[in-house]
Amino acid sequence: MFSFEQISEEFARKFNVRHFPETPASLYEPAEYFLGIGGKRLRPAMCLMANELFGTINPDAYHVAIAIELFHNFTLIHDDIMDKAPLRRNMATVHTKYGESTALLTGDAMIVKAYEYLNRVNPLQIQRVIFHFNNAARQVCEGQQLDMDFEKKEHVNFDEYITMIELKTSVLLAASLRLGAILGGAGKGNQDHLYEFGRNLGIAFQVQDDYLDAFGDPARFGKQVGGDIKANKKTFLVIHALESCGDPKREEFKQLMKSNAADKVERVLAFFRECGVDTWAAGLKEKYISQAEFHLEEVAVSSARKDSLRNLVRFLIQRDH
Amino acid sequence: MFSFEQISEEFARKFNVRHFPETPASLYEPAEYFLGIGGKRLRPAMCLMANELFGTINPDAYHVAIAIELFHNFTLIHDDIMDKAPLRRNMATVHTKYGESTALLTGDAMIVKAYEYLNRVNPLQIQRVIFHFNNAARQVCEGQQLDMDFEKKEHVNFDEYITMIELKTSVLLAASLRLGAILGGAGKGNQDHLYEFGRNLGIAFQVQDDYLDAFGDPARFGKQVGGDIKANKKTFLVIHALESCGDPKREEFKQLMKSNAADKVERVLAFFRECGVDTWAAGLKEKYISQAEFHLEEVAVSSARKDSLRNLVRFLIQRDH
Repeated sequence: MFSFEQISEEFARKFNVRHFPETPASLYEPAEYFLGIGGKRLRPAMCLMANELFGTINPDAYHVAIAIELFHNFTLIHDDIMDKAPLRRNMATVHTKYGESTALLTGDAMIVKAYEYLNRVNPLQIQRVIFHFNNAARQVCEGQQLDMDFEKKEHVNFDEYITMIELKTSVLLAASLRLGAILGGAGKGNQDHLYEFGRNLGIAFQVQDDYLDAFGDPARFGKQVGGDIKANKKTFLVIHALESCGDPKREEFKQLMKSNAADKVERVLAFFRECGVDTWAAGLKEKYISQAEFHLEEVAVSSARKDSLRNLVRFLIQRDH
Repeated sequence: MFSFEQISEEFARKFNVRHFPETPASLYEPAEYFLGIGGKRLRPAMCLMANELFGTINPDAYHVAIAIELFHNFTLIHDDIMDKAPLRRNMATVHTKYGESTALLTGDAMIVKAYEYLNRVNPLQIQRVIFHFNNAARQVCEGQQLDMDFEKKEHVNFDEYITMIELKTSVLLAASLRLGAILGGAGKGNQDHLYEFGRNLGIAFQVQDDYLDAFGDPARFGKQVGGDIKANKKTFLVIHALESCGDPKREEFKQLMKSNAADKVERVLAFFRECGVDTWAAGLKEKYISQAEFHLEEVAVSSARKDSLRNLVRFLIQRDH
């Protein structure tokens, strides 16, 4: 059994090659540039780890893992256009460096390339693989649209926000695990438990991300605290604060979030603490991690085989207890 | 055997249904809106006609025909963003009506939907079908990128322009025929002849389009003459004029193309005639039609079975002799 780190290295060896033709360079150099920026390669590693639960790694799992990572990068390139993001991982985004039209087309070429890799899967499993891949792909598009819709909405409730996070983030993690399991010959029960493991883990990770943006230690978190607050972003914390505080406070909080006061971050954090949002978010994260862990333990393979996925949880989720 | 019109009607019956879920409406209403604008549905009809050459229509050919039309619409939605086109078929483009971000995502959801239809093809043929579909999809992206590159280039030669047109337009027509043929059980020879038929027909059609924009009868052509000239677009005519006229004239012509003179269209047309560009373009179109027809006649099925594809040539290509 490989550890998460070993699987990541093995994947990197297969992934860090040229994927696109040389010409037209105006289309494919941006694609190679963006893949070169790197990333945690979390989804393909999850696909490979799920696959290895059921035996030695099936070579097809690498094709699918590469397809998943290419699809993920396709969504990042297009999301960056929509979000007008200048940087990703401290590097210029594709549209900043090459223009929006080229970034749009580079993304398009990248999703086609993902399907080229999927098409290498053995004939007996290819349709099931493409079916679940397509489902996830469709849902990721839906999640991104909901995210954009929410920016314009005055009020977003907790259930709507969870649905958006599931679609935009969790579903692809969950599908990566399911696809690895399918290629490992797993039955539907094991596939479903792995899917639920990934879905819950994805939500827990997003709760943590929202939490750390507000309450994280900048030294450990690695980025400035309060970015979401400054940008008036709807997060788990904001949504819960609005839902749990009483009417008069709610209006005060809404005004505060819309403002650009110099002490906005501190005042919002004080408000969060006053409403107990910090404790609530820590509990919410634990709830989703517990659900994730429950489903992982239910996967019917020997406990030792699940160590790399257990370690992945530790790698992704900070726990202070 | 069905005629082109009958096949188009049959396809419309299968295609003019709702393809996308109801929610999120903000993503899928734009998709249904754009499909509702209509179109000639040329590519799926070609897929079905090629399929019927070899027997009764295979139900899988409808899945592939729908996938091709969805892919084509995906490219139109994204091209319209890149070209900043306000209208298509006299209707607002998706980005004009719903914003660029939604248009981008609507296109993304549409290509995923195309692969959902492809995934319905029988297991014995699915990989070959997706292989050729992916090849065409990749080349269409390359063609669009070259088209954008050419707008910024001072000089584009004839061979470069032909390559761009092949990639951007011809390859999908050619692949539609090949995919229909594959699903009809055609051998490689017949597939290749149909592919070449489509590839040459696509180039002939583009030559005609460029020609009619300059020399067409507005009453028959259905749009204003000289649009390409006013927009200083590189066309077969412009590229040949620049390549065939002598050095002093070339500079004069370049200046004229860049100008916004009130009599620009008439002066460019006079220049075209002086250089014999009109006769040359008519000959070029005939050359590609002849090549297309040669390959169609080489397809080893009884001559009568090819009538609907012969009629398609007549439908697409105006002949004045």
